[in-house]
This record gives sequence, C-alpha cells and structure tokens, in this order.
Amino acid sequence: MKAKGVQRTPTTDNSQRTTSGFKEGLERDSTVEERVHNFNAGPAALPLPVLKEVKENFLDLHGSGMSITEISHRSSLFEEIINDAFDMTRRLLQLSDDYHVLFIQGGASLQFCMVPMNLCLPGRPVDYINTGIWSTRAIKEAQIQGKDVRIIATSEDGGFTYLPTDYTVDRQASYVHFTSNNTIMGTQWRQFPDGEGVPLISDMSSDFMSRPVDVKPFGLIYAGAQKNLGPAGVAMVIIREDMLRRVPDNLPTMLKYTTARDNRSLFNTPPTFAIYVIGLVLRWLEETIGGLKEMERINEEKASLVYEVIDKSEVYQGVAERRSRSMMNVTFRLPDDELEQRFLAEAIENGFHGLKGHRAIGGCRASLYNAVTIESVKSLTAFMREFEERSI
Amino acid sequence: MKAKGVQRTPTTDNSQRTTSGFKEGLERDSTVEERVHNFNAGPAALPLPVLKEVKENFLDLHGSGMSITEISHRSSLFEEIINDAFDMTRRLLQLSDDYHVLFIQGGASLQFCMVPMNLCLPGRPVDYINTGIWSTRAIKEAQIQGKDVRIIATSEDGGFTYLPTDYTVDRQASYVHFTSNNTIMGTQWRQFPDGEGVPLISDMSSDFMSRPVDVKPFGLIYAGAQKNLGPAGVAMVIIREDMLRRVPDNLPTMLKYTTARDNRSLFNTPPTFAIYVIGLVLRWLEETIGGLKEMERINEEKASLVYEVIDKSEVYQGVAERRSRSMMNVTFRLPDDELEQRFLAEAIENGFHGLKGHRAIGGCRASLYNAVTIESVKSLTAFMREFEERSI
Repeated sequence: MKAKGVQRTPTTDNSQRTTSGFKEGLERDSTVEERVHNFNAGPAALPLPVLKEVKENFLDLHGSGMSITEISHRSSLFEEIINDAFDMTRRLLQLSDDYHVLFIQGGASLQFCMVPMNLCLPGRPVDYINTGIWSTRAIKEAQIQGKDVRIIATSEDGGFTYLPTDYTVDRQASYVHFTSNNTIMGTQWRQFPDGEGVPLISDMSSDFMSRPVDVKPFGLIYAGAQKNLGPAGVAMVIIREDMLRRVPDNLPTMLKYTTARDNRSLFNTPPTFAIYVIGLVLRWLEETIGGLKEMERINEEKASLVYEVIDKSEVYQGVAERRSRSMMNVTFRLPDDELEQRFLAEAIENGFHGLKGHRAIGGCRASLYNAVTIESVKSLTAFMREFEERSI
Repeated sequence: MKAKGVQRTPTTDNSQRTTSGFKEGLERDSTVEERVHNFNAGPAALPLPVLKEVKENFLDLHGSGMSITEISHRSSLFEEIINDAFDMTRRLLQLSDDYHVLFIQGGASLQFCMVPMNLCLPGRPVDYINTGIWSTRAIKEAQIQGKDVRIIATSEDGGFTYLPTDYTVDRQASYVHFTSNNTIMGTQWRQFPDGEGVPLISDMSSDFMSRPVDVKPFGLIYAGAQKNLGPAGVAMVIIREDMLRRVPDNLPTMLKYTTARDNRSLFNTPPTFAIYVIGLVLRWLEETIGGLKEMERINEEKASLVYEVIDKSEVYQGVAERRSRSMMNVTFRLPDDELEQRFLAEAIENGFHGLKGHRAIGGCRASLYNAVTIESVKSLTAFMREFEERSI
C-alpha cells in the first residue's frame, strides 16, 4: 500500500519537519519514516515532536509497563495527564476561575445540540449568525429542539464567501452563536461579533488555540480537537460558571455540561489517548512555540506567504473576500477544472497532501493549522509559483 | 517517573507476552520496553502485536507519510480501515444483512440514554433487569426521559452478587435490557435471558467479542471499546434493521441511530485512531486467535485457572455466586483488610497491575479480557498460591 511517486521528508535527525523542496528527488530510505507536507483540513497535521513522543512511549508510558491505551482513567498516571491538560489550557487562554475546561466526546456536532439543550433560557430566543455549512448545522439542531431561533445575520446570499457586518443582537437572546472560522469557504472572524452583553457562544473548532482570545464576552467556546489540538474524538469546551446554572435538571446525564464539570470530565471513561495527545500538543504550544501570541505570529506569517502568491497570481483566485479571509484555511481556485485537477495531482506527486477543497464546493484549500511548519508552507508557495510559471 | 521495584516482561523478541515469573529477578534493560501483567478492568490490556503495529506505523501509516492521527476521515486510506473493521465484525459475529454495525462516541454511558430515546415505542413500557451499577445507570437514563420503566428482575437484595433467574417479560415491552457482564461484582450471563419474542438489548461492554453470540434475539447490542475491542472513546453498536424504524424524527441528529447508519458512522469526524486500533484488534482476533469460539476457549481456560485457586483457597474468597460468576472479571476478597492491602501491594511489586477492586466495593478483581495472555494468568495464579502459602 505504498503511495507511489511521492517525495517525502525524512524524519531521522531533528524534531522539526525539514524542507524537502519540490524539485529535489529524495531517495527513499526504508529505515526512516518519510513524511509528506500535510495540509489536511482535519484530522490534520500534528507537531512532529509530539508524534515522536507518542511513538517512543507507546508500549511503556512513563515506566508504567503499559501503553497509554491500557492504563486506567482512574490511575494517578492518567489523573496527572488530564490535570496537566486542564492547567495548560487555563494558562494558554489565561482563564479566570469562573471558567471551566471540559472534555466531551462527540465533536462539535454533538455541541450543536448540547448548546441549545443546556443554555437556552425558558421563553427566550437564541441568536445565530450563519456563515457557512457548520453554522447552518448548529442552527438546525436548535430548530429541531423547537427553540425560538433567530438568524440575526447570514452571508448565504454570497455563498458564505464573506462575513456579515450588519446585525442586531436581540437583548433578550439566551446567547449569540457564531462560527469563529469557517473551514469550508475559508473565512474567519478576525474581530469577534459584539454580543452587547448577551453571552457569546462560539464554535472555534478550526481556529482554537491558533491565537490569543479574550474569553470574557464568551459564555461558552467549543472546539473539536482534530484541527489544532490533537486526534479526532473529543471536543474541548470552555464554559463560564453562570452558564452552568442554566442547565435543566431533566436532561440525559451525559448531555449535561454539569456532569462533565462535576466529575472533572471523568463521569465515564474519557478518550484517554486523545486527551494524552492533546496534553502533549498543549505543552508543545506552551514550551516549544512559546504561547498563543507567538503561535498567532507564526500563523499570520504562514497565511501571508500563501495569500501573497494568490494575490499576485493570474492563475490562483482566492475564494473568500479579502477582509474576511482565514489564517487557517486558504481557499483558492484555478481558472478551469482541468488545470485545477492537474495542480492537485502534481501537488501530491510533489509531497503536498490535503489540498483538495471540501467536497461541498470543490477547488483547492491549504489548511495551515498550528502544526503546519513555515518550511512546509514555503515549499508549497515555491511549488505554486513554479506551477504557475509552467501554466501561463 | 519510573515505577520502582516492578518486575516486568521485556518485549523485544516476540509478539506475545512472555512469562516473567514472579520469582525471577529480571534485570531492567533501558533499551527495551518493559511490560507488566495488566489486569485492568478498562481501559485494559491490548494485544501486544497490535500495540507494536501501532507504534511501528505511527509516523507513516502504510506509506502515506502521515500518522493515523493526521489522515482525513474522508480519505480512501481511512475508508478502507473503517470498512475492514465493519467487515471483520460481521464475520466474527456472523451477522446477517439485517444487522448494522455502527461506531458512536460517548461510550456505553451515552447508549444508556440513546436506547430509550430511539427505541421506546409510544405508550409501551421498557423492561430492565438490574444486575449492578451499570444496569442501574441505564435504568436511570430511561427514567429521566419519563419512560414507563419496569424493573422485571433485580439482584440488588444480594448486593448484585448473583444473576436473577425469576422474571416475567412484559409482552408489550418495547425491549428487555440487560447487562451481559457486570464488571464490578464479577457476574456474567452465560446463557442470556429469554426475551420471549420481545427484542433483547444488551450492554455487552465488558464481554463483547469474548465468545460467540447468537445475535438473532437481539434488537441492539452495544459495547464501549475499552475492554476487549480497543482504546477508550468509542462504542460499537450492532442494531437490527427493524429497530431503526422506531427512531423518532425529531431527535437531535447526533443522537439518532439512523444518522450513524445512513452515513456509515461518518456523519461527522469519527474517532479515527480508536477505530484503526479496533480494526487491528479484530484482525488479531480473526487471524491470530482464530475467531470467537477459540477466544472463548482461551478465556474459559484463563478464568478456570484463577477460579481453581480461589475455590481451593482458605485465603481467597470469591465475591460472585458460583453459578453467576464471570469469565472476564474474577472478583475475590481476602479475610481482612490488612492482608488484602498487602496482597495488592506485593502484586504490584511483582508486576501484576490492576488487581484492586472497583472503588464502589473494594476487594480484588482480576480482569481477564481477551488480550490478557494465559502466561500472564499462570504467573498470577502462581503468585496467588505462593502468597497464600506465606500467609496461612
């Protein structure tokens, strides 16, 4: 099942991805793992030092004689792992004591239903801003529950290629929900909507931990792990104490935010492996990268490199409007389908993976999550320029 | 963070755990992982060849140049992984076409609420047999939803140390729910209750895939993965086609069995790593072990070895009644707390981990899931005998 004709990056000698360069013909060496440039939209690239640490310890975690997948979630070893993850999250986001950090299974999609179920105030509407497919799904789940859903702004008329600026928050609303970064069309709120005192709730799955966030206006933030945090199979939820008082008594136990809070996310067996890897990613963010401000600077540099190619190009056309475009997911098209297919095929041949756009809209997309290195991005932009030269 | 004084089993030369023997003083060798005898109740031991394969491929899965944690759930590589897992499950359980295999996050605890939500027929009761803490939790979730819950049998009077034989199924019941194996007290239905035509629903978390099961009387079987199947963070659900027709339209999308069925468990991002490991475990079951009949034979042999020591002992006292006791979780006590603590401490010193009973009842428990080898069990029984000799 070896992929053919793929140029890869050997991972033997240092802990960062090195630049393979799209023109260099690296000899395959079966004794080393060979890594590609991974621009997947999620599950996505993870920091190589983290992957190496997981591998290194996989049969014997910290001298326990067991794999991380084999230890009890009630063991002191796992308690330390999950508590470290909570603590690092609190430090990275500078959370005050009135915020709780929770791990909940089911991804952002389960949050779409848990948010209205737990946090809609009786007789009060819920406000949503619709900026794409994921917002639309969140709205649908509130509607299924019969909530008084008010879509206070939408960019559906423009095919979700921009973020709406004109909206009026209902002062009576239980909350205002928005998607901070829209992976499919490649838009991102660089400045968050103003809730005017109504608690903000945000699906931050695809840009969580990519930049500092002032959490104060937020009643709840949720993020599926599989973009910037770790493996798929868990969502991180940041919830403010006052929101927990809204949780109705009669909900199923597993669907109440209070269950996770009261049991420190250990009511039942949590996804221990995913939480372990998230802990390693958070430590990498804190210690190797140096925190969210530095992460943001790196992410801005990466996105600028790709947007610069697009903005100067006669071949690549950006999908999202400039003022709305995302640091995380750079979406672009080529003039015709044939050229686009050739671009994507040659990209893979040269070791650039995950550049195919979402199946709902096609085109191309480079996802530049935290773990994607500047070296990978520079290799990509060099390839894009070279491809353009050949194609004009 | 190295554990001290622990005798371990080196894992260098073959793919099965070897017997360390509690008396042999193995020299620690820092170049090999040293493994303990793992009797954890869940998350629990996984087959060593599976762990080795995960480790081996962790930076580069099948020549993709990516980790299993970094590949898209929409990639052909992952499609193959999940489809193989479905196919192997169907073969191992000999499922006919009217059964569907689903992966759902949230463990058995989310199934406690999904079962009544999806499968209770309007105006009809739901029957439950209460054989322990997990059954009690399942019952509670049906009650929270206001269902007409009828507890047709319970062994609560005997502290759940036996399985009730006397019960009458309500012919009008939507289903009869029972827990096939009770991890905490160590009881197991060797012959399943008779539903008398009413569909059986069973939480098989702790003995799923440990023996052949005739699925025909079952409308639904569910099992958290972290005992016999793989890492924590996913439940496998086997559901019969006619059950799916009961699913109400207005449920939250993520909580409907039809959503998982219609999307082949890929409605949203599934826990890709857990499913990958489950696939490797299923392959090990099928190819290395030789199927569920052979697995059952091995499990019976393992359980017999431990029960033999208990039955002949003046020190170890079995907790569960003989006719109800479990092949998977052997529960026992020692005459006094001081001796019990000494037994548990010396067990750990000799490389036997996870023998402490559930925090709800104390005592000792050896969980003998599929991946626990006969060699580990023989080492344990030798240690138990030797400890007894010294203690009388």
